[in-house]
Amino acid sequence: MKDVVIGIDIGGTFTKFGIIDKDGKCLKENYTSTDKYHDFDEFLKNLHAEIEKCIKHISEPISVKGIGIGAPNGNYNRGTIENAPNLNWEGIIYFTDKLKAYYPNWPIVLTNDANAAAIGEMMYGGAKEMKDFIVITLGTGLGSGIVVNGNLVYGYDGFAGELGHTNVKHRGRECGCGKLGCLEAYVSATGIKRTVFKLMAERIIDSELRNYSYETLTSKMISEAAKKDDKIALEAFEITGRTLGVRLADAVACTRPEAIFLLGGLAQAGHLLLEPTKRYMDENLFPIYRGKVKLLLSNLKEANAAVLGASALAWKELQK
Amino acid sequence: MKDVVIGIDIGGTFTKFGIIDKDGKCLKENYTSTDKYHDFDEFLKNLHAEIEKCIKHISEPISVKGIGIGAPNGNYNRGTIENAPNLNWEGIIYFTDKLKAYYPNWPIVLTNDANAAAIGEMMYGGAKEMKDFIVITLGTGLGSGIVVNGNLVYGYDGFAGELGHTNVKHRGRECGCGKLGCLEAYVSATGIKRTVFKLMAERIIDSELRNYSYETLTSKMISEAAKKDDKIALEAFEITGRTLGVRLADAVACTRPEAIFLLGGLAQAGHLLLEPTKRYMDENLFPIYRGKVKLLLSNLKEANAAVLGASALAWKELQK
Repeated sequence: MKDVVIGIDIGGTFTKFGIIDKDGKCLKENYTSTDKYHDFDEFLKNLHAEIEKCIKHISEPISVKGIGIGAPNGNYNRGTIENAPNLNWEGIIYFTDKLKAYYPNWPIVLTNDANAAAIGEMMYGGAKEMKDFIVITLGTGLGSGIVVNGNLVYGYDGFAGELGHTNVKHRGRECGCGKLGCLEAYVSATGIKRTVFKLMAERIIDSELRNYSYETLTSKMISEAAKKDDKIALEAFEITGRTLGVRLADAVACTRPEAIFLLGGLAQAGHLLLEPTKRYMDENLFPIYRGKVKLLLSNLKEANAAVLGASALAWKELQK
Repeated sequence: MKDVVIGIDIGGTFTKFGIIDKDGKCLKENYTSTDKYHDFDEFLKNLHAEIEKCIKHISEPISVKGIGIGAPNGNYNRGTIENAPNLNWEGIIYFTDKLKAYYPNWPIVLTNDANAAAIGEMMYGGAKEMKDFIVITLGTGLGSGIVVNGNLVYGYDGFAGELGHTNVKHRGRECGCGKLGCLEAYVSATGIKRTVFKLMAERIIDSELRNYSYETLTSKMISEAAKKDDKIALEAFEITGRTLGVRLADAVACTRPEAIFLLGGLAQAGHLLLEPTKRYMDENLFPIYRGKVKLLLSNLKEANAAVLGASALAWKELQK
């Protein structure tokens, strides 16, 4: 009988889930729609049916021990999703309480997706031997999970670790959160695109990026252009790395991590992003930390990092 | 027989110490010189003699259980003072190891002064019921102690919690640490003085502060002037509160404290500093935190807050 947990990653479009053993091996995985369901109870009913189907297809004997969930605006303390702008369900969703109706016997834990990624990194990724580190997810927005002395920082209300909303510029760019000048408006797949559009307005130099509309341009196209020495794209990475580097230096001054891991779409630019970020981070670090904080790419596989993270959250809970 | 610990606060000029019981009552306290001793071993020999003298003067029977020390650039993990710019002893001082030669039977712990203040606040002050909070000390510099889930954040190398060296301005004011634009160059007793001098250069309005040299002006004089409606002084508090408020908002995004406590010389300005800091902090907070983070003055008595903090560190260690 193999002990397993169920890891669930709630995304705006799809919800992915997997049956994961303690070594991070995925016995079976699948996904279902998120945005098709305007009613949360309907969504949950379907998700439960899909999970049951998935479990039935596993041939070896398993014993499910718990469920871990990563979700946007997920609150660990309350097991809720609260006012998530990218989901159909408004207000406060009592996710774990409602899921308990289907699975009353297993511990069910939920946190935000970046926190889940941090726990995944600790259990299965590059932070296995680390007790103090930060994971930054660079997708549509910028998420963060902060680990101190082996534990994720949840803070007073379960919502700690929102580096995406630290302040880059007074009266700066509009952020989806309603504030001006947040880090994620500058550093994220969307943020670098906004920087490219600003540069195209300011500079007169040629760039292949001038052929794309705002709606069609992706951070991947910006990376590809930078690899071909496109000056606008290269400058956008330099600026993005500077902005991120300075705020990471500030985050280091808070919790002094051993390493910071970058994950997500924009992180796939690799060296293009890492090099300037590391340079500016070091330049802006309190001297006693300088040269001593590692900046690394996550070594979780992008495709299922979030599901792995959610499962790691469940394993972590079971250790308590 | 009453259980007590010895709390020691190493300052640039004086070293204060006290014999403290578990309720924070000081049975006896005294101080000795720090800067008179260029040789650390000589300093320690004298400190030991002074402590012994102090203990002998306590009439009731006591049992000493441990020693806690707060020191600039103190490292909890190693029990060292490392390259403290305001002390005579260069390089790395193995403080706890050397003190153990005098007191081999008691646990001896050391941390930086702001961390000690945070533990003092938790044990004897306004954070008694709190598990997540931050203490900011506003003296010559800006120190910080960050508590997460009831424990002080030491980070990977024991040097976490250096909010004084987060980045306010690119190529900004010179900081004692060698970096440019650090928070403590703007927000501290010295920082507000620098702001006053900048304002006196920029504005032509009358101010009583124009009568003082840089060497004689103190943050207390600036508070006094502000209370008398001096425009330069009032603007200096507004700017100082703005700068601090923004960086506190960023610190909240890291660890989501229940409250932030201000302590030290500049904090004695009270409402003059609290009001603009709170206003700008809230304005720059991620909306889900807005209005929910308390900004408070420490309720430890200024005179012996550091000694109390050091003793609390020792009590905390004994609980482990």
